[in-house]
Amino acid sequence: MRTKDHQIESFKNKMKNRGRLLIQCPDQPGIVAAVSQFLFENGANIMESNQFSTNPEGGTFFIRIEFECQDLLERKSSLQENFAKIAETFSMEWKLTFVHDLKKTAIFVSKELHCLRELLWEWESGELITDISLVISNHTEAKELVESFGIPFVHIPMSKDNKRQAEEKQLQLLQEYEVETIILARYMQILSPDFVEAHPFKIINIHHSFLPAFVGARPYDRAYQRGVKIIGATSHYVTNELDEGPIIEQDIIRVDHRDHADDLKKTGRSIERSVLARAVKWHLQDRVIVYGNKTIVFN
Amino acid sequence: MRTKDHQIESFKNKMKNRGRLLIQCPDQPGIVAAVSQFLFENGANIMESNQFSTNPEGGTFFIRIEFECQDLLERKSSLQENFAKIAETFSMEWKLTFVHDLKKTAIFVSKELHCLRELLWEWESGELITDISLVISNHTEAKELVESFGIPFVHIPMSKDNKRQAEEKQLQLLQEYEVETIILARYMQILSPDFVEAHPFKIINIHHSFLPAFVGARPYDRAYQRGVKIIGATSHYVTNELDEGPIIEQDIIRVDHRDHADDLKKTGRSIERSVLARAVKWHLQDRVIVYGNKTIVFN
Amino acid sequence: MRTKDHQIESFKNKMKNRGRLLIQCPDQPGIVAAVSQFLFENGANIMESNQFSTNPEGGTFFIRIEFECQDLLERKSSLQENFAKIAETFSMEWKLTFVHDLKKTAIFVSKELHCLRELLWEWESGELITDISLVISNHTEAKELVESFGIPFVHIPMSKDNKRQAEEKQLQLLQEYEVETIILARYMQILSPDFVEAHPFKIINIHHSFLPAFVGARPYDRAYQRGVKIIGATSHYVTNELDEGPIIEQDIIRVDHRDHADDLKKTGRSIERSVLARAVKWHLQDRVIVYGNKTIVFN
Amino acid sequence: MRTKDHQIESFKNKMKNRGRLLIQCPDQPGIVAAVSQFLFENGANIMESNQFSTNPEGGTFFIRIEFECQDLLERKSSLQENFAKIAETFSMEWKLTFVHDLKKTAIFVSKELHCLRELLWEWESGELITDISLVISNHTEAKELVESFGIPFVHIPMSKDNKRQAEEKQLQLLQEYEVETIILARYMQILSPDFVEAHPFKIINIHHSFLPAFVGARPYDRAYQRGVKIIGATSHYVTNELDEGPIIEQDIIRVDHRDHADDLKKTGRSIERSVLARAVKWHLQDRVIVYGNKTIVFN
Repeated sequence: MRTKDHQIESFKNKMKNRGRLLIQCPDQPGIVAAVSQFLFENGANIMESNQFSTNPEGGTFFIRIEFECQDLLERKSSLQENFAKIAETFSMEWKLTFVHDLKKTAIFVSKELHCLRELLWEWESGELITDISLVISNHTEAKELVESFGIPFVHIPMSKDNKRQAEEKQLQLLQEYEVETIILARYMQILSPDFVEAHPFKIINIHHSFLPAFVGARPYDRAYQRGVKIIGATSHYVTNELDEGPIIEQDIIRVDHRDHADDLKKTGRSIERSVLARAVKWHLQDRVIVYGNKTIVFN
Repeated sequence: MRTKDHQIESFKNKMKNRGRLLIQCPDQPGIVAAVSQFLFENGANIMESNQFSTNPEGGTFFIRIEFECQDLLERKSSLQENFAKIAETFSMEWKLTFVHDLKKTAIFVSKELHCLRELLWEWESGELITDISLVISNHTEAKELVESFGIPFVHIPMSKDNKRQAEEKQLQLLQEYEVETIILARYMQILSPDFVEAHPFKIINIHHSFLPAFVGARPYDRAYQRGVKIIGATSHYVTNELDEGPIIEQDIIRVDHRDHADDLKKTGRSIERSVLARAVKWHLQDRVIVYGNKTIVFN
Repeated sequence: MRTKDHQIESFKNKMKNRGRLLIQCPDQPGIVAAVSQFLFENGANIMESNQFSTNPEGGTFFIRIEFECQDLLERKSSLQENFAKIAETFSMEWKLTFVHDLKKTAIFVSKELHCLRELLWEWESGELITDISLVISNHTEAKELVESFGIPFVHIPMSKDNKRQAEEKQLQLLQEYEVETIILARYMQILSPDFVEAHPFKIINIHHSFLPAFVGARPYDRAYQRGVKIIGATSHYVTNELDEGPIIEQDIIRVDHRDHADDLKKTGRSIERSVLARAVKWHLQDRVIVYGNKTIVFN
Repeated sequence: MRTKDHQIESFKNKMKNRGRLLIQCPDQPGIVAAVSQFLFENGANIMESNQFSTNPEGGTFFIRIEFECQDLLERKSSLQENFAKIAETFSMEWKLTFVHDLKKTAIFVSKELHCLRELLWEWESGELITDISLVISNHTEAKELVESFGIPFVHIPMSKDNKRQAEEKQLQLLQEYEVETIILARYMQILSPDFVEAHPFKIINIHHSFLPAFVGARPYDRAYQRGVKIIGATSHYVTNELDEGPIIEQDIIRVDHRDHADDLKKTGRSIERSVLARAVKWHLQDRVIVYGNKTIVFN
């Protein structure tokens, strides 16, 4: 994994002056002027900017600005302090993130490995930029694959009886590794409410249907029974309503009467893996903002 | 409409020797041999053939054969009689249709005209080949458009109180015009069970969602509420389970966080009209076979 | 056409305070701050903003801002004057447009009417907002259709011998009607260099292939000969290099070995019309910026 | 690789009675009757059948039949002999293939591994069923990956000076391993005419553009220069006309003005790998028939 470490260091170095400002506040005139004036005065050059308002006359305003700023890492805290004043004026919820600080990620997986594989490949090729801290599974199928990428694999068996203990072990590991984002890459287990609440909009799931069609178990079988002509996959943040969390990305693929449930399952894999990979990428780049039970995706 | 009449006559003349054989029977060896031998002996040349078996070892077998046969119109009844023997041997459900005999169609519409318009245009340009007997509406918005194509328009107002009488009037017209296929081009009324049962798998609806997501009323509003990233349209045969009939065709289009419910409605129109037009075309060409609550589409 | 007039007046009234600022200039820090400060000080509320830089360190910067401003129509010239100072500082090319001032459009058409029809329908339904001044054709097939929408239709026959005179007549009409945008809705004639140069990036064409494949005549025949599995349509600004102008929008549709050249032609119509309609819509909304021989599309 | 061997044996056993009959002949009445009668008399049950005629009145007829037949492996030669008589009557070109006999495949690769990876994964998961005999590369990047799947990797450096010798070595290996299908998974070298002619329609390439746009080198750079809004990938059989061989499959993906040439390259990878994988799968299943410079794909 020497090559991979080297690649990451080079990325971090290249991006050491790159920051992102994410803001959400009641819409009113003058927000963009104030924020862009702030960035200008602080020597920050806007690289990309996306904004959206639910209703320019009194709705909620969202903006994501990616900028370059000399000596950003040294100036982190002074920037934060200075911006706090503007934020107060406009009653902003906001955060400043630094591209240099890679988000730490844990991937949860069960027996089916196609989504995990896609993430590992895109990570290795540099398309998915994150620090994959570990992979956790209730089975051992993924062990060899994960370790071949030099990533720690932890097997935590899961049964009805030991669910609480298993989740405690998971939580301990997440804390230990300071994990920020959890990816359920076909994990097939329902997380307990406490686990979910401890990670609000930090857990990304892939559901193998075009939600809200076929919420819950065995969506391909049910799609087959219903005789749909198109199947889908949906990536969403996990909430405590099963498959009802904010949708990040969806995609579909055509099927026909010749496809049995097993064919749908095979065919569906290709969109499951690409939909999850896109959703994860956008999340890691701070492009996804949750608003109510929906997402704004600045991609 | 002189031009249109001329175009239709020319089509019928060109297709006067074109027939279609549709068969459904328990699968067993020898079916294709028997059917193709029959066609060969009767001087019919196969132009297109599609087959499907739910399970070649004891499932149900389906075949659609389009053929050319000299003097077909004169030989209709002799062909039917001769084939009956083969059909008996293999316990076939079957029908022989003649492309020359255009299916008679009625279009039901309400206030929104985009689907009706698409059908009329494709009909006029010769892409949709049918005999549009009449258009029936509970409103008058479509009157001018329909009559400009030389097609009878009948306004039958519909209220809670007069539903039974209105439907009786509709049924009378369908009988009078010998209508075979009924197209609900955004008709927005739920047909009574008796009406539906009188036309099994002869009524084609367009539902403005990606079924089975958003069954029922106001699908775009609900899609907006759910925050989906893709919207869809579904054309299906009408049964007495609302939006649960066999699906013929579906398609989708991307939307994003900027799209309000009204934008979804506008955007969705483009797929509603193309999905319905495709489903109708396939139905008119005897390409859609209902099997259980699903369709086999030989396209 | 009473209804249509009424619909347009209502739109113009609703949009009377809506303006758009389009800017292109060398990238440097402070542009967004200056522009947004200007808008804020002039009482303009940003409704939508899109920006792009070819290279934030010394490239070209583009921004499109849609804003609302009290009494905009009265303040047009003062706004223009005030902004001129900022524009000078940053060496901007810019324009300020007013949604209330509908762009005047002429549609050129030949014998095939599907693209014209789509534009007229979307115009009538309020999805395409423009002032269609007239339709010009070298044939008469479109006459009845165009006039049924209450739009002037002018027949200008075109032959090798009269091309110069015919174009002069066209130019005269365009001037008379003060036309801003010319749409070639399958016009099938090559405009003379003088004609094109008189309307830089104001003439939108639909080419019935996925450019740069099949530049020039008979693209569907050539696509059939090549055995492609997908066909396309491309809408672009007309320049004096045939089919080489800046591309605005493209789309594709699948075909297979069963499709003859005629089938490709039929199938292709559905994407030709939707691609052209989208390109026209974006152009009319000032969403398309030409840069070199490419477009930036802020949609 | 124990698991993989086991999986293959189990597939071969399950398919030991499965054969495919591929026929191409002048169209005339009675072909289907004769062929299906032959299969019936020989105890073969049709599992899937696809046919196509370039023109039912005197064109070329193509049929692909997949069938099950007791003790097929023992009856191979008798079936071949018996069918030869029918074939003669109808002047057929034909072949009988046996699913049990996995096609032997060689993959050629250079430095970019995404297409190779996709093939290896789909092979490992059982979606791509073939006997991958070896991977040949002019570089060493793929060595570790290939060998981790238990597949022989052969490094044959390639320079202007040693091209002839290098190709001779390749040919020797192909012969030694009895390779039937050669897959160029982003191989980036032009094969010599002799090499190509020795493997007619047995070499499958992936070209990173939507052919016939951007034939030749650096298609993404040229797509970027042209400002296209959609990029594509094309899988085709290799002939001695560069990028002009019969197209098997194509697909596309949207891009926009923000995408630099490097982004197109990254984005394009996802369709390159899926397009190549589909083309290879169809070829291995005898679903692709070359006719002139086109393909008929019975999928």
